[in-house]
Amino acid sequence: MTRHLVALAGGVGGAKLAEGLAAHCGDGLEVIVNTGDDCVRHGLLVMPDHDTVLYNLAGLEQAVFGWGIEGDTFATMDQLAAYGEETWFRLGDRDLALHIARTARVRAGGRLTEVCLGLQAALGVASRILPMSDDPVATEVRTADGWLEFQEYFVHRRQEPDVLELRFAGMTAAAPSPEVVAALDRADAIVVCPSNPLVSVGPILAVPGMRDGVDRARARGVPVAAVSPIVGGRALKGPADRMLVGLGHEASAAGVARLYAGMVDVFVIDAVDEGEAAAVEALGMRAVVTDTIMGDDASRARLAGEIVAEVLA
Amino acid sequence: MTRHLVALAGGVGGAKLAEGLAAHCGDGLEVIVNTGDDCVRHGLLVMPDHDTVLYNLAGLEQAVFGWGIEGDTFATMDQLAAYGEETWFRLGDRDLALHIARTARVRAGGRLTEVCLGLQAALGVASRILPMSDDPVATEVRTADGWLEFQEYFVHRRQEPDVLELRFAGMTAAAPSPEVVAALDRADAIVVCPSNPLVSVGPILAVPGMRDGVDRARARGVPVAAVSPIVGGRALKGPADRMLVGLGHEASAAGVARLYAGMVDVFVIDAVDEGEAAAVEALGMRAVVTDTIMGDDASRARLAGEIVAEVLA
Repeated sequence: MTRHLVALAGGVGGAKLAEGLAAHCGDGLEVIVNTGDDCVRHGLLVMPDHDTVLYNLAGLEQAVFGWGIEGDTFATMDQLAAYGEETWFRLGDRDLALHIARTARVRAGGRLTEVCLGLQAALGVASRILPMSDDPVATEVRTADGWLEFQEYFVHRRQEPDVLELRFAGMTAAAPSPEVVAALDRADAIVVCPSNPLVSVGPILAVPGMRDGVDRARARGVPVAAVSPIVGGRALKGPADRMLVGLGHEASAAGVARLYAGMVDVFVIDAVDEGEAAAVEALGMRAVVTDTIMGDDASRARLAGEIVAEVLA
Repeated sequence: MTRHLVALAGGVGGAKLAEGLAAHCGDGLEVIVNTGDDCVRHGLLVMPDHDTVLYNLAGLEQAVFGWGIEGDTFATMDQLAAYGEETWFRLGDRDLALHIARTARVRAGGRLTEVCLGLQAALGVASRILPMSDDPVATEVRTADGWLEFQEYFVHRRQEPDVLELRFAGMTAAAPSPEVVAALDRADAIVVCPSNPLVSVGPILAVPGMRDGVDRARARGVPVAAVSPIVGGRALKGPADRMLVGLGHEASAAGVARLYAGMVDVFVIDAVDEGEAAAVEALGMRAVVTDTIMGDDASRARLAGEIVAEVLA
């Protein structure tokens, strides 16, 4: 019988673990992805977290940067520049096909999740990648220059401004999709990927009803594991460390664990953070200490295997 | 003082003469283009006639096929195929930038003509290319298989089915744009390019109010010239010859002249059709016999120069 594992994921780090989990769970894996980073570029709906997970699961991902398609070209983007379009958000030619097809299908009346599932199937992905909601939610960050759209902060300003406050526009009117609710209700285990707890996992858990779904699963005895995105006090990728400190948290594995306290049973930290295991366990979680750096396919599969052994044993 | 020349044009043949006319008239040239061929592909607004004229005036045109951009690549299209999108209408990567930017600007509330003018200016085109209308008009052809969207007939079925009837959906509700009305009102001469008289020039003249604009200009003494798209009984490109016969007309220079009788003062025919000059003149037009084949830039400029000398003398 297929065991159902639900992962919560943001972009690059989440996608790497999702790829490892897919190697173990295949069509038993459902990845709920953050959509707060989604944006409209040149009139096209771009879903950075969904797409990064998709390309990783399809084996198309760009190895160095972690987003986009390996070997992609930029002919369309260069020509868009000729028309005076802003091009700091670089979209490759093959990548654009995803945004074009998705936008056309949603504009034609398709429901976001159904459209995404169709695109995933077309690339032969056996696992399912579920937008956290069919309703639009937009993560915005307040900086010294005022409120910024997330990609303006993340890509255009290279995460340089200090983040003073976060908000998720549209969140109060959003709901988990039917597919997300069903995934949580049939889950045998839940894994929170090593993604930014504030702007990747945070929006997912903030969708009204999402946390209830996780709690319902836990009440059934479903274990929840989380992997620290902070290793040795630093984010492996992205601004999570500075953002945690700037918003009054601690940039450490234990600091992340504190954010998940009451929801997570197993917290996975890197060997370099072994000294924080006691602090994690004091929060009521079991600490698992291992190598969490996912430099290649083998290390992704190994870490995922350890997690699967913990939660689907 | 700038002399104002208005050209009416469809696709490839019209674009070639427009390019020649631009070499003589520069920013005094305004090209009114057929929009009946426009279509939505992958959710993007594609305007084949506008775009062919644009690429010709910008010096970007694909030399062999006459549409699209020289040296363009097809990475996006190949990836769209992976998502199950229909790809018989091949759009190159650089070409797609035009459709993406235009669609985004129109969806954001831009008026079609203003959006097109902005895109033309971005490519450094001094002449102005005016959609015949800001209102949507769709040319449809009836074949033995029933009514077909124009590009389904023209591209997908390679113009193979016999055309039994034409209609222009949306035409009764369409009006010339303010820019088209202004262009006709300040015209010093009007030139009908060697485009298909039924599905390229036909829709332009069928826009309610367009023919009135031409007639107002003629009442002011503005000469109207037309160039035959039929040479030696054959269309140089496209299905005009078969379509003329199928719809009860004559596939000859004189047959085309007959369609323009009462609106045109000077009718330009190829030297091989010299024998039809008398029939043309019997329709009340002056026949000009010359070499109308536009194989290269020099021949486009020469033919355009002869026409300009006739109508802007």
